[in-house]
Amino acid sequence: MQLFRTESSDKSEKLLPSTGALALAITKVYLVLTSLCALLYLMGGMSLLDAVCHALSTVSTGGFSNYDASFAHFHSLYLDCVAIVFMLAGALPFTVYVALTSRKLSARTLPGLFDEQIRWFLVFCAFASVIMAVWVAVTTDVGPFQALRLATFNVVSVITTTGFVSTDYMQWGVAAAMMFFALYFTGGCTGSTAGSVKVFRHQVLFQAIRRILFRMVNPHGVMSLKLDQTPVSEETLASVMAFMFLYAATIFVIGLGITMTGLDFVTSISSAATAVANVGPALGDIAGPVGNYSSFPAVAKVLMSLGMLLGRLELFTVLVLLTPRFWRL
Amino acid sequence: MQLFRTESSDKSEKLLPSTGALALAITKVYLVLTSLCALLYLMGGMSLLDAVCHALSTVSTGGFSNYDASFAHFHSLYLDCVAIVFMLAGALPFTVYVALTSRKLSARTLPGLFDEQIRWFLVFCAFASVIMAVWVAVTTDVGPFQALRLATFNVVSVITTTGFVSTDYMQWGVAAAMMFFALYFTGGCTGSTAGSVKVFRHQVLFQAIRRILFRMVNPHGVMSLKLDQTPVSEETLASVMAFMFLYAATIFVIGLGITMTGLDFVTSISSAATAVANVGPALGDIAGPVGNYSSFPAVAKVLMSLGMLLGRLELFTVLVLLTPRFWRL
Repeated sequence: MQLFRTESSDKSEKLLPSTGALALAITKVYLVLTSLCALLYLMGGMSLLDAVCHALSTVSTGGFSNYDASFAHFHSLYLDCVAIVFMLAGALPFTVYVALTSRKLSARTLPGLFDEQIRWFLVFCAFASVIMAVWVAVTTDVGPFQALRLATFNVVSVITTTGFVSTDYMQWGVAAAMMFFALYFTGGCTGSTAGSVKVFRHQVLFQAIRRILFRMVNPHGVMSLKLDQTPVSEETLASVMAFMFLYAATIFVIGLGITMTGLDFVTSISSAATAVANVGPALGDIAGPVGNYSSFPAVAKVLMSLGMLLGRLELFTVLVLLTPRFWRL
Repeated sequence: MQLFRTESSDKSEKLLPSTGALALAITKVYLVLTSLCALLYLMGGMSLLDAVCHALSTVSTGGFSNYDASFAHFHSLYLDCVAIVFMLAGALPFTVYVALTSRKLSARTLPGLFDEQIRWFLVFCAFASVIMAVWVAVTTDVGPFQALRLATFNVVSVITTTGFVSTDYMQWGVAAAMMFFALYFTGGCTGSTAGSVKVFRHQVLFQAIRRILFRMVNPHGVMSLKLDQTPVSEETLASVMAFMFLYAATIFVIGLGITMTGLDFVTSISSAATAVANVGPALGDIAGPVGNYSSFPAVAKVLMSLGMLLGRLELFTVLVLLTPRFWRL
């Protein structure tokens, strides 16, 4: 049963070296991307320490900043743009970069690298950024260009599970907060540094929904599930959907635990979600984009730590430990 | 593809008449249950009008009351108990009542009627009521017996999607509110008058999750999905899970629309959820158990109406209208 999807596509696979060499190549890609990001940050006026810290947590989509205000500290359009590009770069499958440097690469094989997953991901980032920018421009007194800049930065930061913040987007109203809540669950591509649900699971689910509607109209029709021309087995589909349900259930249980420490509904559920999705900032007044978790009760912090572990290990790896059968082997 | 489960179990099927006679028998069951409920309400001191109104909306799990305070108007332990029994009765498969009156019924076939679905449903109602009662008794100054009474009534009312209210459970704190939010998504048994996700979908999902954990420990093991000894096909599994995802997505989209009319996060998302699940009361100060939707902007009311329709028609029936292929036939 294929629980996790580890290859980016059939086409890029042919351009990839063996496992050991691939690990080395991916490490090189990671080092090159991080160095390039740090260099561009330096050129934008960051100190060496700031540039290195932020580059490390941009490409790794980690989101750590050595300033309380996160990226809002810098007030630089150039730095925002560099961060957006490298957050996106960190959320793409690293195998693609390796394949791009392959000697076997030709003009014919190049387009094959940008598989459905990458296209969905980039189109969705653009789409969500524009929707958010329009909402901000229409409902607040932020100008259209500034709205696009702030929306793109913060939307990309949440989708890629980086968690940098360039403005207090809680000021954009409840609808914006709810959109950010939904964006927690997108995630990056498989084989990237990003966490959360990840794009291919959404693709599988979308195909399943399409098939049901197809079969309602054509009761005897046959429609196979495919991703990048590769068939998706029914068991993969079942495991993807069970994963999503468990994901929601995990967030609910952790959120419920957090409410019991006395925190409010929105803070609790968004903190649970942001922990499991490995994003960073939550919603609300306490742990929102300009807040942090320092005032949280210890129990809430422990629950969130558990959530971060469960989310990063993709649930089943941890949950299997709870089955009696596992311990009998 | 089996999208909806219409029979309660193989065993009760053998005791059931043909379709036409079954429809008549179910109508009789409905009339008998409602009359019995009205009679018991009358005996508890309700006026004839109150007894008929409340009996009609108890067995149909509709939840309409001719008092603003809903069931809290009566302050009667006896009436609360009658309502709990008939809300549960309305959420059981009506085919079971028909089978119970069958002449072919014997002591041997009787236990077969209470299939896994019914057992899960009743055990879950008891479990959720006790958890809620313990929470109320421990965290508020309500005594343990009163806590059990109030918790059971309101939990059963939400699980069966009736929506009667016997106290302002928003006073029980944020954790209780979050538990009620989760209970919106239980629903009754298939073939009952209750709405929401329904028990058999949870059973299918639970089986799918068990199988994944089983396969992680026994990579070459085979575990078939079964409900009441009947195998569940992979396509049924896929459609159940796609349903659940679309359910969540529908609630999110309607909730997002409601926030845009200016309502707060908790009110918006709980109103969307309670509408799609056909429960009734939402959470928060405005539309909570002692509130109502009269002050909602018109757009929010239209969105909730759409949600109620989508939820009652189980999504796919409506969504298929949006596929271009449907209109080409």
